[in-house]
Amino acid sequence: MNFAQKNLTSLLRRMSLDAVLFWSLENIRYLCGFSGSDGALIYADEERIFLSDSRYEEQARDEVRGAVFRKYKKKIEGIARGLRSLRVRRLGFEASALSWESYQRLKERLPRVNLVPLAGQITDLRARKEPEEVEKIRRAIGIASESFRDTLPRLKPGVREKTVGDFLEFRMKRRGGESSSFPTIVASGARAALPHGKASAKGIEKKEMVVIDFGARHEGYHSDETQTVVLGKPESRQKKIYDLVRKAQERAIRAVRPGESVRRIDNAAREIIARAGYGKFFGHGTGHGIGLAVHEAPTISPRGSGVVKEGMVFSIEPGIYLPGWGGVRLEDLILVTARGCEVLTYLSKELKDNII
Amino acid sequence: MNFAQKNLTSLLRRMSLDAVLFWSLENIRYLCGFSGSDGALIYADEERIFLSDSRYEEQARDEVRGAVFRKYKKKIEGIARGLRSLRVRRLGFEASALSWESYQRLKERLPRVNLVPLAGQITDLRARKEPEEVEKIRRAIGIASESFRDTLPRLKPGVREKTVGDFLEFRMKRRGGESSSFPTIVASGARAALPHGKASAKGIEKKEMVVIDFGARHEGYHSDETQTVVLGKPESRQKKIYDLVRKAQERAIRAVRPGESVRRIDNAAREIIARAGYGKFFGHGTGHGIGLAVHEAPTISPRGSGVVKEGMVFSIEPGIYLPGWGGVRLEDLILVTARGCEVLTYLSKELKDNII
Repeated sequence: MNFAQKNLTSLLRRMSLDAVLFWSLENIRYLCGFSGSDGALIYADEERIFLSDSRYEEQARDEVRGAVFRKYKKKIEGIARGLRSLRVRRLGFEASALSWESYQRLKERLPRVNLVPLAGQITDLRARKEPEEVEKIRRAIGIASESFRDTLPRLKPGVREKTVGDFLEFRMKRRGGESSSFPTIVASGARAALPHGKASAKGIEKKEMVVIDFGARHEGYHSDETQTVVLGKPESRQKKIYDLVRKAQERAIRAVRPGESVRRIDNAAREIIARAGYGKFFGHGTGHGIGLAVHEAPTISPRGSGVVKEGMVFSIEPGIYLPGWGGVRLEDLILVTARGCEVLTYLSKELKDNII
Repeated sequence: MNFAQKNLTSLLRRMSLDAVLFWSLENIRYLCGFSGSDGALIYADEERIFLSDSRYEEQARDEVRGAVFRKYKKKIEGIARGLRSLRVRRLGFEASALSWESYQRLKERLPRVNLVPLAGQITDLRARKEPEEVEKIRRAIGIASESFRDTLPRLKPGVREKTVGDFLEFRMKRRGGESSSFPTIVASGARAALPHGKASAKGIEKKEMVVIDFGARHEGYHSDETQTVVLGKPESRQKKIYDLVRKAQERAIRAVRPGESVRRIDNAAREIIARAGYGKFFGHGTGHGIGLAVHEAPTISPRGSGVVKEGMVFSIEPGIYLPGWGGVRLEDLILVTARGCEVLTYLSKELKDNII
């Protein structure tokens, strides 16, 4: 039994549920292997039913493990039939994945089933990775980071951000990635002050800093990494901001160990930046879990809760964004080990190695 | 006032709503121009408030039109503040976009606001396109179809499906597309029986039929088109199935005119395929609306409802999928005009033009 099966068995007992209805595609893939884009999984302790429509019939028969496949024409009716066949009376559902509308339809169709919302209880379902999952993330990182290296020679004054991003994404596919994890961010000069500055038509100029946030997907698992490079000798302010972000990142990485609270890990980075007077220019959390989704548990932020556990994989990515000037973000992925953590991403985050 | 503003003004009156809360990113982009990936829009008759967090502050100030921007740290609290400032008592919300969990949080935070689910009333919000929107879809089609032509010389025996798909996607970006509309489908030989067969490592072989379903995004608007090509002289069964699908597609296109029901348009294609004895091998609907989302209203299927109207843009894409043998799908995008429709996609769907 893997982490998820153990968690679910104990959840079903603890909450006296006959089954859980999974609606989110990531959880469905995680629990039964189906990688298509529509379906539902009824997960009971002894039996599992995966349901989808005719478009996915062959794919489901190919991919699904540990669950029987049943085809539906109308999703809610198919689910209702499956629940009746298992005599489910108390059904857990994913409160954040089911829409208000689908919930109402399910309720109407199943007047005698008690629907129990699951929120916090299943947020962590996929947070601790099995060794095979870590291996897939490592492969995704390798594809992305080597593609980043392939792209560096193209980072020259005059080239458009989008050309850089497109080439990086093309290389990730050529190196075997299924796709990029998300639209690649290439934000140069003042645009680097946009934490989510997707690659634009802007030309990159001499002396600019460029924030490049990229990732590849491999067998459903994602990587996510951010490098900040400088075109030419860094000016003193560029160096100062970069070093500050790097120091914040190192402190947060050093703070990671099983049992440490996500808030304290976040604060390890935040404190460094705040003490230097840049606190209000670091507006996002320090990190996020990653796996079948690009963003999943745990959330490493001042508003996160709980502690990190061995086997979790998440990003550490502080940044400073100065409107009108630009910004720096540095992002690594780490794996929580028995005593601390292993940094999975391997591209150097030292400024000297990121001067072009 | 555009279609959407008129619809919303009348909806607010008809349902005595003080405002509608928009949560889906496509509707938010449609109504105020914001193209980032988190936020909410409060839409009242006279005032609109767009809310997002600090990551999107610069982007919001850049892009948002017709709404004031307010920043939040916690989304639900930001929305609650906005609603209080407008003294909203009856608030419509998107029943299919809001999760059960977010609905509950909103309800807890706003005990005195009456939350009114909107489902059918807003499904059609973006269905009729403004001329500028049609123009963007045309541009997306041009990018995608020319990239398909660029890719044809690479479609040779021995090449992997994924190599073809990657090259097509790369060309779409080089031609100015923001991204592909979805992971490109390249399904050859027996794999073409998978309606959603994403490009795989399988090599394409002589005599095989290959279903290629692709699209590009331009300024947020999508294209979607499917060509089926044959490597070499078609065998009689290939020809028979292809011609049947083509005939079904032509019939459906000919059935389109303002006021025609979506079921009758679907049936125009379905009937041809069913009469020839292949009804159960056409398991999906005939078409779907397209615009800021790849799939949006109207739904052209046996389970769809309502009639089509001038200005709607949707696909006509019948297919026949024979397990173990392969399949054919042909997909065009059409625009409903005053008297019938205009086929927006321009690549030939004739078999003779699709022999390689």
